[in-house]
Amino acid sequence: MSWTDKETPVSELKERVAAFARERDWEQFHTLKNLSVALAGEAAELMEPFQWLEGDRCKALLQDSAKREAIEDELADVVIYALQFANRGGIDLALAIDRKMAKNALKYPVDLAKGSAEKRG
Amino acid sequence: MSWTDKETPVSELKERVAAFARERDWEQFHTLKNLSVALAGEAAELMEPFQWLEGDRCKALLQDSAKREAIEDELADVVIYALQFANRGGIDLALAIDRKMAKNALKYPVDLAKGSAEKRG
Amino acid sequence: MSWTDKETPVSELKERVAAFARERDWEQFHTLKNLSVALAGEAAELMEPFQWLEGDRCKALLQDSAKREAIEDELADVVIYALQFANRGGIDLALAIDRKMAKNALKYPVDLAKGSAEKRG
Amino acid sequence: MSWTDKETPVSELKERVAAFARERDWEQFHTLKNLSVALAGEAAELMEPFQWLEGDRCKALLQDSAKREAIEDELADVVIYALQFANRGGIDLALAIDRKMAKNALKYPVDLAKGSAEKRG
Repeated sequence: MSWTDKETPVSELKERVAAFARERDWEQFHTLKNLSVALAGEAAELMEPFQWLEGDRCKALLQDSAKREAIEDELADVVIYALQFANRGGIDLALAIDRKMAKNALKYPVDLAKGSAEKRG
Repeated sequence: MSWTDKETPVSELKERVAAFARERDWEQFHTLKNLSVALAGEAAELMEPFQWLEGDRCKALLQDSAKREAIEDELADVVIYALQFANRGGIDLALAIDRKMAKNALKYPVDLAKGSAEKRG
Repeated sequence: MSWTDKETPVSELKERVAAFARERDWEQFHTLKNLSVALAGEAAELMEPFQWLEGDRCKALLQDSAKREAIEDELADVVIYALQFANRGGIDLALAIDRKMAKNALKYPVDLAKGSAEKRG
Repeated sequence: MSWTDKETPVSELKERVAAFARERDWEQFHTLKNLSVALAGEAAELMEPFQWLEGDRCKALLQDSAKREAIEDELADVVIYALQFANRGGIDLALAIDRKMAKNALKYPVDLAKGSAEKRG
């Protein structure tokens, strides 16, 4: 089976992450609290390479293949924990995203929000 | 079209998130740096309801339907920013997860990692 | 007694924070884990007003007195949790900072580190 | 001069942190935005050793002197960035803490807040 965004439904990713934890008997550690803490830790690592850089130099990081791989790994870690959080909470992620984006669309109507950096969720 | 984890490939979610930002002309704010900061902010909000609670009471939160919806919304926000980060960085998320999980499998072989809370990625 | 950075030793701040928690019988919730999570949550709130802004507009935020007060409050929250973490862990914060800065000075000698945005602690 | 919480006013710590950055010509990177991101990164590192542990085992970490030193270093890093944020923003930290704690006292009166884990700032 091939893993690409085009061919992989979210449920496949969820199942793979669940199996990985199950095989290692890690579910005992995977409370929602602990997973949210681990996810936040990975999110902080994703920020780290950018923290002292301005816009242009941020983009340049992705041109360097070793740095790109490190950044892709951090992003993967974030999403892996999000998937396992969904697994452990019995959450359908696509459904949750669908509902949240509908709320966001009401909160930020195109004509008012256009081009504005005002606080948004 | 129906949005569920079973039926939705990652690419559909990515495209929806990209379209939302494009329609609002928000791409100018969506540098990788800014998106990583926003993602970390949402990750912190996901932790927040759990921060003073121990294991049992964490689980109970999801029984309360208003709290469940709030938590699902926070998780959705985290993943929305992860998807947009992938969009802006030209990252195939399923591929990145596939590669990262292969690395994790080497780092935490089942027989050694089983049941241990030792540091893991 | 007056509270200003010039006149207030760290120990006074620590004691005030400890007393606040003690009076409310909150020490039961103040494990090191929970305090580190709460601190990270406040740190995320401190980032939030800056997340979509570039350099110049960041500075302008502090000119607006309501926004300045909100930002000062978030910074205070971060430090309050750091002080309570020190209280609960029996950590002398000034001593810890003294030791860490000595390590940093070895890691980033002036002549090599000058003007460079390379990764630093 | 001796550095301990009892003898060190906040202003001394601030000045030391400011001098360190000034000597390395790092002020150019120390925008409020970048410092808030760096602070959040250090806060995440402070959480990390606790993320999979429950209460008792969290406390045990501080008995191990190498782990204690690592945790004290992370706490120091958090506070160092908070002090530099205060420096760059022209914020009197003790004053900000004094004001924030007065607000907290109004928000969480002793008789109502006692022993309750309900959301608090």
